[in-house]
Amino acid sequence: MSQRTKIKALLQSGQTGFETTVKGWVRTFRNNQFIALNDGSTNNNLQIVVDFENTDPALLKRLTTGAAISVTGQVVASLGKGQKVEVKAASIEILGDSDPEKFPLQPKKHSLEFLREIAHLRFRTNTFGAVFRVRNTLAFAVHQFFQERGFVYLNTPIITASDAEGAGETFHVTNFDLNNIPKTAEGEVDYKEDFFGKATNLTVSGQLEGELGAMALSDIYTFGPTFRAENSNTTRHLAEFWMIEPEMAFYDLEDNANLAEELLKYVIKEALEKNAEDLEFLAQRLAEEEKQKPQQERSEMTLLEKLKFCLDNDFERLTYTEAIDILKNSSQNKKKKFNYLIESWGADLQSEHERYLVEKHFKKPVILTDYPAEIKAFYMRQNEPDAEGRKTVRAMDILFPGIGEMVGGSQREERLDKLEQRMDEMGIPKEELDWYLDTRRFGTCPHAGFGLGFERLVQFVTGMGNIRDVIPFPRFPKNAEF
Amino acid sequence: MSQRTKIKALLQSGQTGFETTVKGWVRTFRNNQFIALNDGSTNNNLQIVVDFENTDPALLKRLTTGAAISVTGQVVASLGKGQKVEVKAASIEILGDSDPEKFPLQPKKHSLEFLREIAHLRFRTNTFGAVFRVRNTLAFAVHQFFQERGFVYLNTPIITASDAEGAGETFHVTNFDLNNIPKTAEGEVDYKEDFFGKATNLTVSGQLEGELGAMALSDIYTFGPTFRAENSNTTRHLAEFWMIEPEMAFYDLEDNANLAEELLKYVIKEALEKNAEDLEFLAQRLAEEEKQKPQQERSEMTLLEKLKFCLDNDFERLTYTEAIDILKNSSQNKKKKFNYLIESWGADLQSEHERYLVEKHFKKPVILTDYPAEIKAFYMRQNEPDAEGRKTVRAMDILFPGIGEMVGGSQREERLDKLEQRMDEMGIPKEELDWYLDTRRFGTCPHAGFGLGFERLVQFVTGMGNIRDVIPFPRFPKNAEF
Repeated sequence: MSQRTKIKALLQSGQTGFETTVKGWVRTFRNNQFIALNDGSTNNNLQIVVDFENTDPALLKRLTTGAAISVTGQVVASLGKGQKVEVKAASIEILGDSDPEKFPLQPKKHSLEFLREIAHLRFRTNTFGAVFRVRNTLAFAVHQFFQERGFVYLNTPIITASDAEGAGETFHVTNFDLNNIPKTAEGEVDYKEDFFGKATNLTVSGQLEGELGAMALSDIYTFGPTFRAENSNTTRHLAEFWMIEPEMAFYDLEDNANLAEELLKYVIKEALEKNAEDLEFLAQRLAEEEKQKPQQERSEMTLLEKLKFCLDNDFERLTYTEAIDILKNSSQNKKKKFNYLIESWGADLQSEHERYLVEKHFKKPVILTDYPAEIKAFYMRQNEPDAEGRKTVRAMDILFPGIGEMVGGSQREERLDKLEQRMDEMGIPKEELDWYLDTRRFGTCPHAGFGLGFERLVQFVTGMGNIRDVIPFPRFPKNAEF
Repeated sequence: MSQRTKIKALLQSGQTGFETTVKGWVRTFRNNQFIALNDGSTNNNLQIVVDFENTDPALLKRLTTGAAISVTGQVVASLGKGQKVEVKAASIEILGDSDPEKFPLQPKKHSLEFLREIAHLRFRTNTFGAVFRVRNTLAFAVHQFFQERGFVYLNTPIITASDAEGAGETFHVTNFDLNNIPKTAEGEVDYKEDFFGKATNLTVSGQLEGELGAMALSDIYTFGPTFRAENSNTTRHLAEFWMIEPEMAFYDLEDNANLAEELLKYVIKEALEKNAEDLEFLAQRLAEEEKQKPQQERSEMTLLEKLKFCLDNDFERLTYTEAIDILKNSSQNKKKKFNYLIESWGADLQSEHERYLVEKHFKKPVILTDYPAEIKAFYMRQNEPDAEGRKTVRAMDILFPGIGEMVGGSQREERLDKLEQRMDEMGIPKEELDWYLDTRRFGTCPHAGFGLGFERLVQFVTGMGNIRDVIPFPRFPKNAEF
């Protein structure tokens, strides 16, 4: 039954003069003559020319938006604009009707908010077809990039009893009947009775387990779902999102930054090559959207210009300390236009500061390194204190225009004594992470890694403003539909 | 810092006469002269020749199993057996010591059970290095296979409120403090107060959501974690495992079976090509293990023979009804050697029956189709009842020697009325799956799909007997270590 030609192949080859069968969904049917047929293989529709004089009027009536059909006919050169070939229908079979009175997707512009409500059908729109084909290309490009470099794809656990990283609020995973939770004699939850015999949660990061792999296989990467139970109703946060986390033995922070920059350029290049038509469509969509904004909020570059700019320019690299100087002396800060004024070294950077650096000052992606130890995680490698005694760690964040933090990483603290000292200072229970410390006890070595938030990458490449529009079925507070 | 040569590249090229730097972990150090160095890029160690007369004795003492080192020296032809090239060390740096009194991995044979206890270190053994490199190859081959065919990789949700498929017991996901669960006035758990505003669980399958994608993009596949909260302490079950679930519009059951067979052959071929050395090592390991078994329990083929056999032979295809005839008339059944005797049509097949068909009768992978409707899920396409009035559905299971069910799939019921009728019969709440039914309301079409248990595939290809040994950190009852 699967003998049919996909529309993408037909349009790309441009060949004519043979009979073929195509299957897909009707986007529009106009003048009782022209069907625009889409099968999801490309954003472009195939034009089907119907011989309406010799077609049963009852069938013509069923050629409504959303109907699934199978068409057999000759592929011929198209006289119309916008396509090289079209199919002259010899026979049309209706596979599935679509009642135009009820089908929610009409051939008109729907708001993204409305389409989010019908996420099960939004795949059938031009915008979401394009977004999810680009997402697909980016995901495969990530794998290709690492495979070409000899990395091992490692599946770190999703359910975990370790919550020591402190990356965020976690979701509990339990087998208990919530109406009837077993209690100990002391009246506490008796986790011994739970499925795993202890309290477990959904992972916030595969990094610590990833390091275990890297300390044997040299270079590994994860690509899997991660979770945050944070009550953030923003356009930048999801409760469930996908993350890519490579870990490399014998890498320092500079190697780490080089790899991340190379990865980002590689995957953007792949999307530009494989999804040219999807990206052109999304660029137009974004341009229309931007027209609604006041002039000064509009982007100076089109989507395609932004993507090419990323490929052609080195990311700006500077230390946190240098960034603080720039921010402190900025007119923005002096005119007190930041909500959080930068007064002294040590301040955590807010989104407004990151945006200033990336969008106003450097106007390109920025790699910020060597953050104050106080605002970063325990596992990051400690620098020697500077002349003023300030303590920093070998962290790096990669900030992107319009997105903010795309990548967070660091060289890891490989020295057992330094690591234990920092865990003590930060109150992290060493006994729970004894397995992690074993990597520093036995054959430790310099190593580094980073996490790339996949949806933020998809947002950047597709130009979609809301992160809920780049994952098929977004999870956020009070929403777990489908 | 990452400027070093990986051992795989060095051994593969076989070139000599240049200086290089290698980094890795000491596997053995013998005669104060020969280091076997491994960096995880290959199962083969690189021989480092140490000039012990001119090396600090204190450094020699630190060359212990597990230590991380960096070595710079000339690549020369090797006089020893087993390798073409070796490195004459000009300088050796110890990056991380490994106290031989404490390091749990000694250069001797450890049991798989022991290694499972130290899963954070087992990556450093030949067996697990090989297993996880093969797993990596298989995972990437899955992506390659689908990408070459224009499928879109789709991330279906991990956290879901839909539990209607009935594929198994689910884990609850909650943000509640389990010590203090909000209750309604009626004393029930007040899920409105939970993070998602309703009861949620971990997905058992992405199929239903995958179908939504296929009904717009034509061909999609998922590859992500799935979960079962079943108290199964077996060598074939995990509470957390990875599954590949393609869904194809305009496919019938035969197309579906063809695609699955093609996929399995493709990924096995990739492993044979890319991991020849790993698989040879694992074949030897399995042969040694089999020597411990009584003669009649040993496999007739070696691991490599089994893999090649799969590539070279068509999978056997037959219907459930045909299989029942074979089983009923088998000497096994007549001599009452099955625990569950096959007496009549309609019986669910047990593992012993599947093994008989695959391992004794056909001696190759088997695709069983058209199971009784009663023992299969609601979404499978209903056949016309046969002459005897027996109802079957267009299901297929692919059974593998030593593994049992590797793939389960079906043509889906695309007819709204038939689907609703079956849901009613099986007591599946239609309102909860209204979004799923929408695909049958608007432009429905014949479609099909299947699920491939990734760890079972890795088991088959690596010959590992216990599924806990083919995933880095296995989750099973009372175990969520690391």
